[in-house]
Amino acid sequence: MTASMTSLSPARPPVTAALLIIGNEILSGRTVDQNLNFLATQLSEAGIALQECRVIADDIPTIVRHLQELSRQYSLVFTSGGIGPTHDDMTAEAVEMAFDCPLELNQIALDRLLVFYGSVEQLTPARRKMTLLPRGCGLIDNPISAAPGFVIGNVYVMAGIPRVFQSMVGALLPSLSTGQAFISLTIRCPVGESQIADILTHGQATYPSLQIGSYPYIKDGMPHTAVVTRGQDTDLVKGCTAALFAQIQARVPDAMLESTSPPA
Amino acid sequence: MTASMTSLSPARPPVTAALLIIGNEILSGRTVDQNLNFLATQLSEAGIALQECRVIADDIPTIVRHLQELSRQYSLVFTSGGIGPTHDDMTAEAVEMAFDCPLELNQIALDRLLVFYGSVEQLTPARRKMTLLPRGCGLIDNPISAAPGFVIGNVYVMAGIPRVFQSMVGALLPSLSTGQAFISLTIRCPVGESQIADILTHGQATYPSLQIGSYPYIKDGMPHTAVVTRGQDTDLVKGCTAALFAQIQARVPDAMLESTSPPA
Repeated sequence: MTASMTSLSPARPPVTAALLIIGNEILSGRTVDQNLNFLATQLSEAGIALQECRVIADDIPTIVRHLQELSRQYSLVFTSGGIGPTHDDMTAEAVEMAFDCPLELNQIALDRLLVFYGSVEQLTPARRKMTLLPRGCGLIDNPISAAPGFVIGNVYVMAGIPRVFQSMVGALLPSLSTGQAFISLTIRCPVGESQIADILTHGQATYPSLQIGSYPYIKDGMPHTAVVTRGQDTDLVKGCTAALFAQIQARVPDAMLESTSPPA
Repeated sequence: MTASMTSLSPARPPVTAALLIIGNEILSGRTVDQNLNFLATQLSEAGIALQECRVIADDIPTIVRHLQELSRQYSLVFTSGGIGPTHDDMTAEAVEMAFDCPLELNQIALDRLLVFYGSVEQLTPARRKMTLLPRGCGLIDNPISAAPGFVIGNVYVMAGIPRVFQSMVGALLPSLSTGQAFISLTIRCPVGESQIADILTHGQATYPSLQIGSYPYIKDGMPHTAVVTRGQDTDLVKGCTAALFAQIQARVPDAMLESTSPPA
């Protein structure tokens, strides 16, 4: 009965998400961010709509403000950066201030660092800093370098180093309540996007629940356009793409339907 | 007299900036953003502090809200994306709503498109859309594909395609009031960052006006740390770096001072 009711129940409200990237090095140009694209792709496959990303500086009042704003606006907030052992790692302290959750020594985190570093002597004050976590938080496994991320409320705090961030996302995603994966289908047209703009405008009006994107690019020196239809309802995405393709092909005979779905 | 007074006057207030990246394709993972890192590097050289970046969806109310928030908070707001000919290009319309500046046909923009496309017949309704710009706006040259970006108040609206975005930033930057370029100096240490964390904490407390960043990385399978000191006062950056280097080298004899300044 429950299973049947579940299958008949209306779609769950969409799970929305934001990513907060914390790090001066991204804003100075020293480092090229890699975490946004990784998380975007993973969330898309998990059926979670990433709706915003912010990149901000290593500054506690700034981090506090953005944590509060984003955690109010989205179902899930992911952060990257600022959980290491040095003075410019201040995310945990900002979380404490943003959500009034005192930091305290987390015994599980301490035990993991002890195993990783091999002796109590190796647990320097800098490394112990990584075990000061909000009271009552959940831990996010770090298979790379032991020091865990953590979850408090709807905020998932993770490392900035891409390899560690990726491993944390991998550890985390199976536990999140997810929706239907987003799928996307692409039509490639050997014309500039203005040549088919009217078809796309009409298509978007006909399928308001889908995202129809028009992405111009140059190939062999000539303007081309990728038309991408994206959504969580596979049949609707297929139907919309077929309708667009028929209209585009009538005008641009060399247009082609891409056979594979990814990248979303 | 004026020149002399200028040179003696106290430092101008810092020019702060934010970047607003508009595009579903970045949030879906389809496209890897390239504009943040390019702008960050350019602004750093121009002495403008990029303090925030947001990536948001192609949705007019969303764009309006972020335009208003960022233009209040920062001296300069740069946007990328959403100024092409198709239905998913909605930045100009959002600017109209955000700042109550009606869109109208911009004759200079129209003339440029006419030259670029070669005839009036080629100016389809989709292409004409790119000439509907806020009344009284300034234009940002587009050496690649003619359709200009525009400036209204402190908001600089530019294209999302990286090659076009870069050409617009190049056309724009010389006209902006800029400060002293940011410089950065790097110390490379063949140890994990927790081994030198106390030195960095003390250094940051001694030089609060500089950014001292600690960036761990793996080289030849061993933990390393790049210590980056960044600021606009060359002598201060050099002095801070020399002080840090002396303390680090006393503990880590193999630490090295990187001879070149970039990347910032």
